[in-house]
Amino acid sequence: MKVAVLGFGTVGVGVYEMLENAPGFEPGPVLVRPGKEDRPFKVSSMEQIANDPEVFAVAEVMGGIEPANSYVSMALAAGKHVVTSNKALVAAHGIELAALAREKGVSFLFSAACGGGVPFLHNLAIASESDAILSLGGILNGTTNFMLDAMQSEGKDYGDVLRQAQALGYAEADPTADVSGLDALRKIMLACAVAYDKLPVEGFCSEGIESITAGDVAHFRSLGLSCRLITSGGPAGDSVYAYVEPVLFPASAPECSVLKNFNMAKYCGQNAGSIVLMGQGAGRYPTASAVVRDLYGLGGMPMLRPACRKVAADNSGCVHDYYVRCAKADAARFSFRERWEDGDLVRGLTEALSVPAMHALAGQIRKEGGGIFFAAVE
Amino acid sequence: MKVAVLGFGTVGVGVYEMLENAPGFEPGPVLVRPGKEDRPFKVSSMEQIANDPEVFAVAEVMGGIEPANSYVSMALAAGKHVVTSNKALVAAHGIELAALAREKGVSFLFSAACGGGVPFLHNLAIASESDAILSLGGILNGTTNFMLDAMQSEGKDYGDVLRQAQALGYAEADPTADVSGLDALRKIMLACAVAYDKLPVEGFCSEGIESITAGDVAHFRSLGLSCRLITSGGPAGDSVYAYVEPVLFPASAPECSVLKNFNMAKYCGQNAGSIVLMGQGAGRYPTASAVVRDLYGLGGMPMLRPACRKVAADNSGCVHDYYVRCAKADAARFSFRERWEDGDLVRGLTEALSVPAMHALAGQIRKEGGGIFFAAVE
Repeated sequence: MKVAVLGFGTVGVGVYEMLENAPGFEPGPVLVRPGKEDRPFKVSSMEQIANDPEVFAVAEVMGGIEPANSYVSMALAAGKHVVTSNKALVAAHGIELAALAREKGVSFLFSAACGGGVPFLHNLAIASESDAILSLGGILNGTTNFMLDAMQSEGKDYGDVLRQAQALGYAEADPTADVSGLDALRKIMLACAVAYDKLPVEGFCSEGIESITAGDVAHFRSLGLSCRLITSGGPAGDSVYAYVEPVLFPASAPECSVLKNFNMAKYCGQNAGSIVLMGQGAGRYPTASAVVRDLYGLGGMPMLRPACRKVAADNSGCVHDYYVRCAKADAARFSFRERWEDGDLVRGLTEALSVPAMHALAGQIRKEGGGIFFAAVE
Repeated sequence: MKVAVLGFGTVGVGVYEMLENAPGFEPGPVLVRPGKEDRPFKVSSMEQIANDPEVFAVAEVMGGIEPANSYVSMALAAGKHVVTSNKALVAAHGIELAALAREKGVSFLFSAACGGGVPFLHNLAIASESDAILSLGGILNGTTNFMLDAMQSEGKDYGDVLRQAQALGYAEADPTADVSGLDALRKIMLACAVAYDKLPVEGFCSEGIESITAGDVAHFRSLGLSCRLITSGGPAGDSVYAYVEPVLFPASAPECSVLKNFNMAKYCGQNAGSIVLMGQGAGRYPTASAVVRDLYGLGGMPMLRPACRKVAADNSGCVHDYYVRCAKADAARFSFRERWEDGDLVRGLTEALSVPAMHALAGQIRKEGGGIFFAAVE
């Protein structure tokens, strides 16, 4: 069965190559920009793909919201199954696209959009059919994990590891989406939609790793703790909670064994218990492998069920102890159960604080020109 | 759709309860031994279940080879899908049962037979369709992981932790199948059949944890290493390799974060890279959750494909450095690159040795009345 590929960049080439060896499937036409049709299998007309009766499914790996949304809509409307790695597209238009797929009796799957090679959304979709998912999340951004791991294992500064990540191709020239937590937030949006039929679209709390310093790392390492950027989601009444923040773990935690640019996805089922999935969260072949795996699930369970709707995230019920580093002048805003002074800086462990309260305090301090790093303590 | 349950023990009760809340499914009749029909839904006649047109699928969770094999055959012959948690059954008769299922156009799935709540075989089956699986295995026995973890974290003796595991219900009165590695071997048999269409039935190397002492633990802990009982499988020419042995890991390895009676399954895909799955490998609800998850995969991909055949395992190409503890008199049999003397004992790190060579040397020493502990070093 022929699978058309939309986009022929890093992931597209990987999908095309894997399709050449995937039993039951073969690569169909590849959509490229006009003028880029330098091989007979490349076409620049989406109509041609949508109208090709030999095309059974479409793999969308071009990224971005438009024209991806129009193209995927055309493919679904023409009765083609669609698999995609495009998290921005699913976050923005996933519910509508899933409804169109249902109407046309085809599948719309997007495992590769969250966790790359880690089979997270697929397993979450199956588990959520018969088990109550009590929580989900994990290390869903490989760029920041690479940076945190390098800071911690080599004692380097934030700027150094960012440049290193950029040189290795792990971080973009503008790294904001990764280091601010936005990329991880988009992934938890999808995971919540899959597990809870609720796609959170606002009400997030997101703290990235931009404020971490080598001094912070040295201090919490001396306490036996390691930092990871953790994305958390779960049920919250009629809504879901969904937030991103740095978390400190003791060395024995599975999170600390996630090195370099690897990902770790986690969910806890009421019956299954805690399930942890680790692997490569990005890269040509890991991501392509997730796209191709979805092809073998066509006709099976949907990832977005008919009940899926948009909600505002509700993080008010999420409470942690926090590790905080701030200026002495700002320390009075916190109730510390333990504190260390370091020149003009104070480092401390807070009493329990809600996620929105902690993120709001940090926002206030920054608005007033102050600096702060904080991380939940596991 | 009604799902009959064969067996109403630990797992059977869990499956029954989960079916009461699994959308699209409901519990059907439960097969119990004659005289145990103390509730209206319990029956003691397999014919009654096989002939019940309302029964869509059968969950076999009674364990053992007979009468499970006869009952599963009857169910498949009657056109019922079968899901099972019974690793002994699949290892002994899986190929024939899968062929019967194909003939009847129904599914025969057994995720719960390997890794309990960890979704190992399901993901392996999907991944192996489109990716070359370079290796597979992991920590597949929770009893021995509990014992090793307790010895290492609490410094206890083997006998103490075995009694503790028995008191907690993690180990049987006769713990041989767990501590000898046989339970883990049965699981790797199934994983090889799923990934490689080859069910290894002989030629195994299996070293359990029966020879480990508190002294061994204290010594390799002083080297910064932790011990796990690891099951390994992979392609070996026309056959597969498949063996179980203790392995020593540095503290940063993901294996060291697998605590208590948890499992960790691992596979490496040529495209997907290394995928690690952790969770509860046994227990009522984790195992039941795997049985019920398989119900949602009915009609999808088979776990044993038509090409699956029995082979003798070939471990000759598997080579490791080993940590060895033996009597001084036996130490001359090894070529050590580093050694420590401890009274009458020698502990050492060997040069590279093949798995069959190491297991044969240990067998020879024991046959002559000597004692030895060995573990591969990662």
